[in-house]
Amino acid sequence: MSSQQDNTSRLDVLSNALDSSEIRQLKYMLNKGLRPVEAAKLLEKSPPKERQLLWNLLNKENEGKILQHLGDDIQTDILSRMDPSELLMVTEGLDSDDMADMLQQLPDRVMKELLRIMDKQNRKRVEKLLSYPEDTAGGLMNTDTVTIRPDITVETVLRYLRRHSEIPHTTDSLFVVSRKDSFIGTLPLSRLLTSDPQVMVREIMQTELKAIPADMPEQEVARLFEDEDLVSAPVVDDHGKLLGRVTIDDVVDVIREDADHSLMSMAGLDDDEDTFAPALRTTRRRALWLGINLITAFIASAVIGLFENTLEQVVALAVLMPIVASMGGIAGSQTLTLVIRGQALGQIERSNIGWLFNRELISGALNGTLWALVVALVAVLWFNDITVGIVIALAIVINLLAGAMAGTLLPMALKSAGIDPALAGGVLLTTITDVVGFFAFLGLATLFYG
Amino acid sequence: MSSQQDNTSRLDVLSNALDSSEIRQLKYMLNKGLRPVEAAKLLEKSPPKERQLLWNLLNKENEGKILQHLGDDIQTDILSRMDPSELLMVTEGLDSDDMADMLQQLPDRVMKELLRIMDKQNRKRVEKLLSYPEDTAGGLMNTDTVTIRPDITVETVLRYLRRHSEIPHTTDSLFVVSRKDSFIGTLPLSRLLTSDPQVMVREIMQTELKAIPADMPEQEVARLFEDEDLVSAPVVDDHGKLLGRVTIDDVVDVIREDADHSLMSMAGLDDDEDTFAPALRTTRRRALWLGINLITAFIASAVIGLFENTLEQVVALAVLMPIVASMGGIAGSQTLTLVIRGQALGQIERSNIGWLFNRELISGALNGTLWALVVALVAVLWFNDITVGIVIALAIVINLLAGAMAGTLLPMALKSAGIDPALAGGVLLTTITDVVGFFAFLGLATLFYG
Repeated sequence: MSSQQDNTSRLDVLSNALDSSEIRQLKYMLNKGLRPVEAAKLLEKSPPKERQLLWNLLNKENEGKILQHLGDDIQTDILSRMDPSELLMVTEGLDSDDMADMLQQLPDRVMKELLRIMDKQNRKRVEKLLSYPEDTAGGLMNTDTVTIRPDITVETVLRYLRRHSEIPHTTDSLFVVSRKDSFIGTLPLSRLLTSDPQVMVREIMQTELKAIPADMPEQEVARLFEDEDLVSAPVVDDHGKLLGRVTIDDVVDVIREDADHSLMSMAGLDDDEDTFAPALRTTRRRALWLGINLITAFIASAVIGLFENTLEQVVALAVLMPIVASMGGIAGSQTLTLVIRGQALGQIERSNIGWLFNRELISGALNGTLWALVVALVAVLWFNDITVGIVIALAIVINLLAGAMAGTLLPMALKSAGIDPALAGGVLLTTITDVVGFFAFLGLATLFYG
Repeated sequence: MSSQQDNTSRLDVLSNALDSSEIRQLKYMLNKGLRPVEAAKLLEKSPPKERQLLWNLLNKENEGKILQHLGDDIQTDILSRMDPSELLMVTEGLDSDDMADMLQQLPDRVMKELLRIMDKQNRKRVEKLLSYPEDTAGGLMNTDTVTIRPDITVETVLRYLRRHSEIPHTTDSLFVVSRKDSFIGTLPLSRLLTSDPQVMVREIMQTELKAIPADMPEQEVARLFEDEDLVSAPVVDDHGKLLGRVTIDDVVDVIREDADHSLMSMAGLDDDEDTFAPALRTTRRRALWLGINLITAFIASAVIGLFENTLEQVVALAVLMPIVASMGGIAGSQTLTLVIRGQALGQIERSNIGWLFNRELISGALNGTLWALVVALVAVLWFNDITVGIVIALAIVINLLAGAMAGTLLPMALKSAGIDPALAGGVLLTTITDVVGFFAFLGLATLFYG
């Protein structure tokens, strides 16, 4: 809670500052008072105008540190307004991996120009990182590794380390490499500290942990870190040569984004979405999603349109039909969500999907029957018409079964088609449950009343 | 991918083993071949019968190590079938925090019994941990800290550490404490290793990082770890006395569950939900959610029922009305999702909700107008009736505005009422957009055609 309050009070300071234009006080708070990550959060939760104003109050030397904590969406915004020389200043002194991530947001022309004016050493580092896709171990890794040889004593290592003024952040183990820089093993600092100074590195280094290939997808890297409780891990090329290391703080970001992704995608939103994006951008982005769903809605209407005559005879059908569609949609989306999470956790495979499918069918049949009876009862009492009760009961059971099938099979099909189930699943599912629901309900009605 | 394939092949091994009953081979794989976390994943993605069989093949000494990697839902299942003496065997040799987490799943009676037969030292540790709620720093912490005094030299620290055979896992810094065990500061191993042996701990220890109070909510702990890129952090009581430490591996679990939570809640699912739970349990859990949504559906129907006469006159209305409801629902849930994520990230506050509300209204109005025109055009051509076009256009604009308002205000209201917006938000939102949608559309129609 406390941090919550701090933030609020800070925001109040902000608004006061804006009203009474106590700009100096605000400038101090941004550049000295808050740590970069706090300043970044303040920017992220400020509407565009305030955000722009706050950004302008930053001292040049703080811009980079703060920028790297901002969401991609906002980063791109700000970076796109800078010229290469500004960009150079901003990115100076960042970890090479953070720098590379930022550069990836830039238009090629600008990035090339920036690399050109960068000093040689930095350019080499960054270009190396840029050669790997952002969403792989190579794109995630950092190049600041501390490496040692296997054939030296613990004492020598300790002396060697003392010559450094500091060791890179989140270094929990040193990497043991051959003369040719190929990765041999890791020496955890904890083990280094508990070993006899005379022992050779070779004797105490760990070799169980395989190094991560640079092209491993970041989700898999994250799962590896979670399973092995890693803090940092070596990254190697196809020939086993040590390239750099992935650290837990970058992995945590992957996990966060990864998890956000499903939630946001299901609503047709981008997971980088800036919460306080300007109205026009928001509108543009959502228009597409609404358009896609409109098509769905029209398909459903078309189905209803097939039964105009029946609807004219029995208006009760028009009153009750949304119930059939919505019950199928809800049940289906429960199955869909469960399966999508199962896929994300790597739980669902050809070998167990069959069982899951049956389980969902059984559960759909049971819940379908239960609620079909309830709805039928209400419908009969409401319109005192037995037929409408029978019709809606059958329709609901049918639609919950359809929901269960679609909820299980859609994400499987989409995934193997290379389409993100979280993004497309919901729309397709409701299309199916709407169509099946309306068709079953009104179709059966036409039979019974015809 | 590779790990994916491994798993599949393992599962195949499993099924083969089951068919040809090569139980011995399977037993070996489970107890020796796979690491505990891998075995746990295999159990998690096995349907109940296979899962039970696999569990029975485990050697007693492996049960605990594997159990701690299983989801709460499955843990409770398995633990509930054990008697205290078995539980004692299983939980033996686990970290005290993992042990405490498991005990919290047990019925009080069993837990008391288990504590009674536990050896004194373990009981003390666990009881200490149990005294803190599971979802606070105290519940998250581990008690295996390495502490040192401020008034000794680096050399002494190094000698002291060498006397240990090993340092607890994910120890990235030692905690400096007073004679009375109150926390003074941290000494990162990296700094220990780069300092002159003659320097005093006091001179090089870090004091910027505040210790975490035992009652800090786990979400806040997670945010702290993310912001500060922490690997481990000290936990203290109200008097600043060091109680233990939270480590990044436990924090990662919090982040994972936390993120899953919103996704699952929005579909009315529990985030501990066992993907392969038996059909009956699945059915029972989902029945409630379907029931709640059924009430929503009936309310919508009731609204439609108010306009039976109009529907009898103009059957086109029955065909088109789902479009109005669905467009409002989709637009509203986009806003809702964005706000819920914003809340989770701690971005949304009294000071900026006003701006957000306006932004959503504007965006709703713009998208509403755009799609209203499209729908109107189609409707007019479809039923060649100008009036129906005008009516549906107005209704869609009204409903998208309703969706924008509900999507912004609902989660705020629910949160301040202490209700989880992710759980209740969706249902309430669609209730509102259905009611407003049907009422606006059919109401306006009644006016125009009446």
